[in-house]
Amino acid sequence: MTTPLALHPDRLFPRDKYSRDIAKSLYSGVKDLPIISPHGHTDPIWFSENASFKNASELLVQPDHYVFRMLYSQGISLAAIGIPGADGKPSNVDPRESWQVFANHYHLFLGTPSRMWLDHVFAEIFKFDVALDSATADHYYDGINTLLAKESFRPRALFDQFNIELLATTESPLDSLSHHAAIQASGWSRRVITTFRPDPVVDPEYEGFSDNLKQLADLTQQDTASWSGYLAALRQRRAFFKQHGATASDHGHPTAATADLSLAECEHLFHKIISKAFCAKDAELFRAQVLTEMAAMSIDDGLVMQLHPGVYRNHNQTVFTGYGRDKGADIPVATEYVKALRPLLNRFGNHANFTLIVFTLDETSYARELAPLAGHYPSLKLGPAWWFNDSPEGMRRFRQQTTETAGFYNTVGFNDDTRAFLSIPARHDVARRMDCGYLAELVADHRLTETAAAELAVKLSYTLAKKAYRL
Amino acid sequence: MTTPLALHPDRLFPRDKYSRDIAKSLYSGVKDLPIISPHGHTDPIWFSENASFKNASELLVQPDHYVFRMLYSQGISLAAIGIPGADGKPSNVDPRESWQVFANHYHLFLGTPSRMWLDHVFAEIFKFDVALDSATADHYYDGINTLLAKESFRPRALFDQFNIELLATTESPLDSLSHHAAIQASGWSRRVITTFRPDPVVDPEYEGFSDNLKQLADLTQQDTASWSGYLAALRQRRAFFKQHGATASDHGHPTAATADLSLAECEHLFHKIISKAFCAKDAELFRAQVLTEMAAMSIDDGLVMQLHPGVYRNHNQTVFTGYGRDKGADIPVATEYVKALRPLLNRFGNHANFTLIVFTLDETSYARELAPLAGHYPSLKLGPAWWFNDSPEGMRRFRQQTTETAGFYNTVGFNDDTRAFLSIPARHDVARRMDCGYLAELVADHRLTETAAAELAVKLSYTLAKKAYRL
Amino acid sequence: MTTPLALHPDRLFPRDKYSRDIAKSLYSGVKDLPIISPHGHTDPIWFSENASFKNASELLVQPDHYVFRMLYSQGISLAAIGIPGADGKPSNVDPRESWQVFANHYHLFLGTPSRMWLDHVFAEIFKFDVALDSATADHYYDGINTLLAKESFRPRALFDQFNIELLATTESPLDSLSHHAAIQASGWSRRVITTFRPDPVVDPEYEGFSDNLKQLADLTQQDTASWSGYLAALRQRRAFFKQHGATASDHGHPTAATADLSLAECEHLFHKIISKAFCAKDAELFRAQVLTEMAAMSIDDGLVMQLHPGVYRNHNQTVFTGYGRDKGADIPVATEYVKALRPLLNRFGNHANFTLIVFTLDETSYARELAPLAGHYPSLKLGPAWWFNDSPEGMRRFRQQTTETAGFYNTVGFNDDTRAFLSIPARHDVARRMDCGYLAELVADHRLTETAAAELAVKLSYTLAKKAYRL
Repeated sequence: MTTPLALHPDRLFPRDKYSRDIAKSLYSGVKDLPIISPHGHTDPIWFSENASFKNASELLVQPDHYVFRMLYSQGISLAAIGIPGADGKPSNVDPRESWQVFANHYHLFLGTPSRMWLDHVFAEIFKFDVALDSATADHYYDGINTLLAKESFRPRALFDQFNIELLATTESPLDSLSHHAAIQASGWSRRVITTFRPDPVVDPEYEGFSDNLKQLADLTQQDTASWSGYLAALRQRRAFFKQHGATASDHGHPTAATADLSLAECEHLFHKIISKAFCAKDAELFRAQVLTEMAAMSIDDGLVMQLHPGVYRNHNQTVFTGYGRDKGADIPVATEYVKALRPLLNRFGNHANFTLIVFTLDETSYARELAPLAGHYPSLKLGPAWWFNDSPEGMRRFRQQTTETAGFYNTVGFNDDTRAFLSIPARHDVARRMDCGYLAELVADHRLTETAAAELAVKLSYTLAKKAYRL
Repeated sequence: MTTPLALHPDRLFPRDKYSRDIAKSLYSGVKDLPIISPHGHTDPIWFSENASFKNASELLVQPDHYVFRMLYSQGISLAAIGIPGADGKPSNVDPRESWQVFANHYHLFLGTPSRMWLDHVFAEIFKFDVALDSATADHYYDGINTLLAKESFRPRALFDQFNIELLATTESPLDSLSHHAAIQASGWSRRVITTFRPDPVVDPEYEGFSDNLKQLADLTQQDTASWSGYLAALRQRRAFFKQHGATASDHGHPTAATADLSLAECEHLFHKIISKAFCAKDAELFRAQVLTEMAAMSIDDGLVMQLHPGVYRNHNQTVFTGYGRDKGADIPVATEYVKALRPLLNRFGNHANFTLIVFTLDETSYARELAPLAGHYPSLKLGPAWWFNDSPEGMRRFRQQTTETAGFYNTVGFNDDTRAFLSIPARHDVARRMDCGYLAELVADHRLTETAAAELAVKLSYTLAKKAYRL
Repeated sequence: MTTPLALHPDRLFPRDKYSRDIAKSLYSGVKDLPIISPHGHTDPIWFSENASFKNASELLVQPDHYVFRMLYSQGISLAAIGIPGADGKPSNVDPRESWQVFANHYHLFLGTPSRMWLDHVFAEIFKFDVALDSATADHYYDGINTLLAKESFRPRALFDQFNIELLATTESPLDSLSHHAAIQASGWSRRVITTFRPDPVVDPEYEGFSDNLKQLADLTQQDTASWSGYLAALRQRRAFFKQHGATASDHGHPTAATADLSLAECEHLFHKIISKAFCAKDAELFRAQVLTEMAAMSIDDGLVMQLHPGVYRNHNQTVFTGYGRDKGADIPVATEYVKALRPLLNRFGNHANFTLIVFTLDETSYARELAPLAGHYPSLKLGPAWWFNDSPEGMRRFRQQTTETAGFYNTVGFNDDTRAFLSIPARHDVARRMDCGYLAELVADHRLTETAAAELAVKLSYTLAKKAYRL
C-alpha cells in the first residue's frame, strides 16, 4: 500500500489561525520573487556544459552529505549507497540498488529538513503523488531517470524553471574558472558567479598546502615564498575572480581568530610556515593574520568577506581514510567571536567600504556575541542560520535570538549553501515560510504592523541578500 | 479552605486546539503501553523483600534531592526535613513534623516538574482530591500512611499496578547483587535488572578508591595492583552483572574525556594512580582511558555503555561535610564532547556491536555537538533530556534541538533516572505527553503525517528503549 | 502619508485565545501596581533639582546606548546624532538635526525592544497618534519640546505619574551623594535611593584606579595604602551609602570569579596591586578577593549584593578613543559561574543574612548553572533577564529556562536597569505582560491553577523585588 505525497500549502506556518492567516498573506507577497543564491556549492560545469543529469542516485543521494550521514549513522555502509572511495575508485554498487537502500531507510529522515527538501523535489519537480518507500523505490527511480533525460530537465532549463536570478558557486584560488568563463562567453542571460575561497592556500594544515603555494606561484608569476609575493599573488587571484563575477570571498576556518601583526612578525611567521617547521598554534596565527590581510584587500577590491568558522572537520578517521573529505563527519564546536574578531574589527570594523558576514554553528553566540557585535559595528553583518541550523527550528531560533538586538537590517537574507541543485527552490521556500511566520507572529503580538511586515518579508527574501553581497 | 486537586486529562498538550486534538489522539495510543525503565536508582531490596514503605516522609521527601534542594534554597535546614547526618545518625525530627515543613513550603514547587510528579502521585496513587498545603498536611500524612500499610501498596503490587515491564537499578561493581539474585530466585514474573556502574573503582578521586580496589581484588581473585589484573577484574564483574540481568553499564564522569593510550602508557599511568602520587590531570586521563577500555569490553560482552558527564559534585562543602553526597548540591558545568569523545569513537565508533548512549546537562551541546555526532556515528545514540532537563521545557528543547539533525531513530526513548519509585508512572506520563505534543506539532506544521506520528509515538514511548538497551 | 501609532491593549500576550484571555485577566491584576525599580542608572540630580528636560534629542536619543549603537551599526556617525566627544566637547550638531537623523532611521528598530519602549513613550506620555518617521520628525520634536517645558513634565511630576514607589540609582564610592541628601532633605515623599557601586576603587584596571584610592583615603581618613585601611575605607563608604538609603551594592566585573585567600595572601596581593607591578591575572584575583570581602561586609551591614559579570567593555577602540565609555560597544562573553562562585559560596552561601543576586548575559548559564545554584544555595537568587536579554524573547527564555529548576521564589522580580527615565513604565509594562503571558501558558498547560497564577503575578511584579532588595 502506498502513502500519498502532498505538500500542504500552509506547511510551516504558525499554528494559531490568526498568525497563520497573516503568514499566508505575507508569503503570497514573496513566494514568487526570484531566487538570489549568493553562497553555494553547485558545480559550474552543469551550467557551462548543460548536460543531462545521469540518474536519481547520482543526482540526489551521492552528492548529499546530509543524506548519507544519516544512513551511515544507522549502520548503512557508504559503499552500499554508491559513495566512491578516497582513491577515487567508483563504488561497484548499481545506482538502482543504492536508490533502493536509500528508499528502504527514508523513514530515518522523518522530522528532518532533508525529508522536507526531498519531498518538495519529489512533488514539485518530479510530480510524484505517492511517498518514497521500499515499495515505490523503482517507480521513483524509473520516473526520475525518464524525466532527467528530457531537455526541460537539463541544468539551464531547471535554473530558469526555478526562477534563479543569481547563483554563486565556490572555487579555490587555483581554479582556472574555465566553466565560469564559458558561461560568460555563452551569452546565457542568467548569472552564475564564482566566490573566492582561499582555504587551500591560506590554511597551512590543508592537504597539499606547499604544492598549492607552488601552483599559486605558477598561476600568478609571483614569488609565493616571500610574504609580499604571497600577498601579491592572492591579490591577483582575487582580481581574476572578480573578473569572473565574484563579489565575495569565503573563509572556512577552524576558529574565528584574527590577528594584527607587524610586518616583521608577519614575515617571520610566514617563513616558519613555508619552512614547515610550524606547530598548530603557528598555523592558527597564520590563518588569523591572513584573514586580516584579506579584509584589507576587501577594502581595496570591494569583495564582501564571509567567515564560516567552528567546525571540526573529518572527525571520523576511518571514514576519512576510506572515503575522503565531506562525508558527513564534520562536527561543530563551541566558537568564540568577541576576542577572536577584535584584531580585525579594530582595524577595519568602522570602515565604510568593508562588509564582513559572519556565520556560526554555535547558536549560543547568536544572542550573546554576534547580535551585539552586528548591532554595533558598521562593517559586521550576520549570516543566516547555517548548515545544521538551516532548518525550521534553526531559523526560528536565529530570528528569535538575533532580531531584538541586531534588528533585521544587520542580517543578509538567506543562503542555501548547497551542492544539491534541485533542492534550491525547496530551501528558499522553507526560509521564506519561516521568515513570514516569524514576522506574522510579531504582527500577532502587536510588535509590528502588517504593512511593515510585508516590506520586511521582501527584504528578507530578496533585497537584503542583493545589497549585502553587492549583486 | 482547601484547594481542589485534579489532574486535567489534557495537561501538557499543545495549546492550539488543532495540535491538541492530534496530541490527544497520539497519546491515547501510548498511554497504556508498559513502562520500560532502563536507567534508574530505586533500591532492589524493595522488590526482593517486598516490605511496606514506612511513612510519607521517608517515602516521598527524604530520598528525593529534587525536593529537599528546593526547600534548602529557601532557608529550610536539612535537619528539619529529617535528612540524616553524614555520620549516619538519623535526624531526630519526627517524620510527621518533616511532612508538615514540606507541606508548608509546597508553593515553592509551583512551576517545577517535582510538583507535577508529586501531584500525580497524590491524585493517582493515593487518590487525594484536595491539594497539599499547611492545612491538609495531616490529612495527607495519615492518609498516605494508612494506604502504605496495605498489601496493595507494597513494592511488588505497585510495580504491577504501574505496569512496569522492566526496571533497571544501578549498582557498584563491589555490590553482591544479592537482592537481584533473590528476585531472580523468587520466581516473580516482572524484570528488575542491575546496571554496572563502576565509578567507585574507576575514578581515582572517588572516596575510598584504594580500598575499593582491594575489595575488587578480593571479589575476583585478580591482582588489581597490575593493569592487566585490574582489567580482568572489571571484566569478571561485568560478567557477574550480566548474569544478574545487566544489559548496560553506566559511567558518571566529570567530563566526557576519553583516551586511547598505548599499553605501556596505560601501565605507567595505572602505577601512578595506585601509588597515589597522581595529580588531577592524571586522574582525568585515567578515567578517560578506562572508558575506552570499557568500550572494548562492551564489544565483547554486549553491555550497552552509558555516559553521564558534566556535573560538579558536592559543590557545597558545608552540606557535604554535614550530610554527605547527593544532597542537591551537584551543579552542571559546560561540557565538551567533540574532542573529548574522539579517541573512543575513532577506535569503536564505527563498530556494529557497540552502543554508546550519551547524556548531557549542557543543552548547548544538543544541536551543536551531540546531534551531529549521533547523526553520523553508527555506535552513538542520544540519551533523553537528563536530570534538571527531565521536565516539560527540557524535553521540548531536547526534541527541537536534536530531531532535525539526528532524527528520531538515533534517540533511545525515555529514562526516569529516579530513586523516587512512586514517581515513575508520573515521569513516563510527562515524557509521553511531551513527545506526543511535539509530534502533534510536526503534524500540524505538515512536516509529518498523522500515521507516521502514531508509529513514532509508540517508538519513543516503548520500542526504542527496548532496542537501544537490548532488552 | 503618516502611519497611525496605537498601542494594542493585548500586545505581547500569548497568541492562542485561551491563554491570551488568562493573560489579560492576570495582567489586569498587576498593571496598576506601583513600580519598584531597585536597580537603575537615572541621574539623581533630576529629582533633587527637578529642572525641566531640555529637548527630545537630549532626553531620548543621546543618553540611550541602545539607540545610538543601532544607528552606528548602519553607518550613522555618533557625531551626527549629537554624542559629545571623549574630551567632553559637545557635538556641534543641532539637536533638531540629530532628531531628524534618528527619525529617518527609526525603521532600523523594527522588532527590537527599543522600538516598543519608545513607541510606548510616544503614545502614552506624549500622546502622539502618528508614528515617528522622516516626515513626522519635526512634528515630534516640537511636540515633545512643548510638553517638556510644562510643569507636569518635570522629573518629580513624571515620577508621580509613573507611579514609581522606589527608584534606585547607582553611584561610585567617591560620590558625595549630595543629590540624594538634597532629595532626603526636601521632604519629597517618594523614595530615590543610591546603590553602592565600587568598581572604580575595586578594579585595578579601571581608569584612574590609583587616584581613586587616594580620593577614597581623603574621603574616609583611612590609609588606603594598607589592606586593612583599604577595607576599613570601603566599610565606611558602605555605611555612608546606607545612610543615604542604599540597600544594595552592585558589582560589574569581567567574570564571576571569587576568591578566598588568607590574610597574608591578601596583603601581598594588595601591595602588588597598589605598586602597579601587577599583571591581568593579579587584577582578576584582586577583584575576585574583594568580592568575597564585600560579601563579608554584606553580612554585617545587610546590603544586598548584586553581581553583573561577563561583558567585554569598550570593544571598539576607535569609538572608545573618540567618544569614551558606554557607547554601545560592550559585548557579552561566555561566562562560567559554578567554579567561579564557589570560594564565595563556600564561605557565605549558607548564611541566613546574606543575599547575592546574580545576573548573566550568557543565557547558556540559566538552565545549566544558575538555576541549579539558586535552587540549592539559601543565599543565591537569580536576577532577571539583563541588558540585551531585557526583551520579550529574552524574558520568555529566562522563565522557560530557570523556573523548572529554581522555581519562582528564587527570582527577584524585574530590574529596568536604565538611564532612560521615560522608558521606565514601558519596561516594567513589558515585563509584567511577559510574566503574565508565561503564567497564563502554565495555566493553559494545566500546570498551575489560575488562583496560584494570580498570586504569582503580583509577586513577580512587585513583592519579590521588595523582599529581595530589603525595601
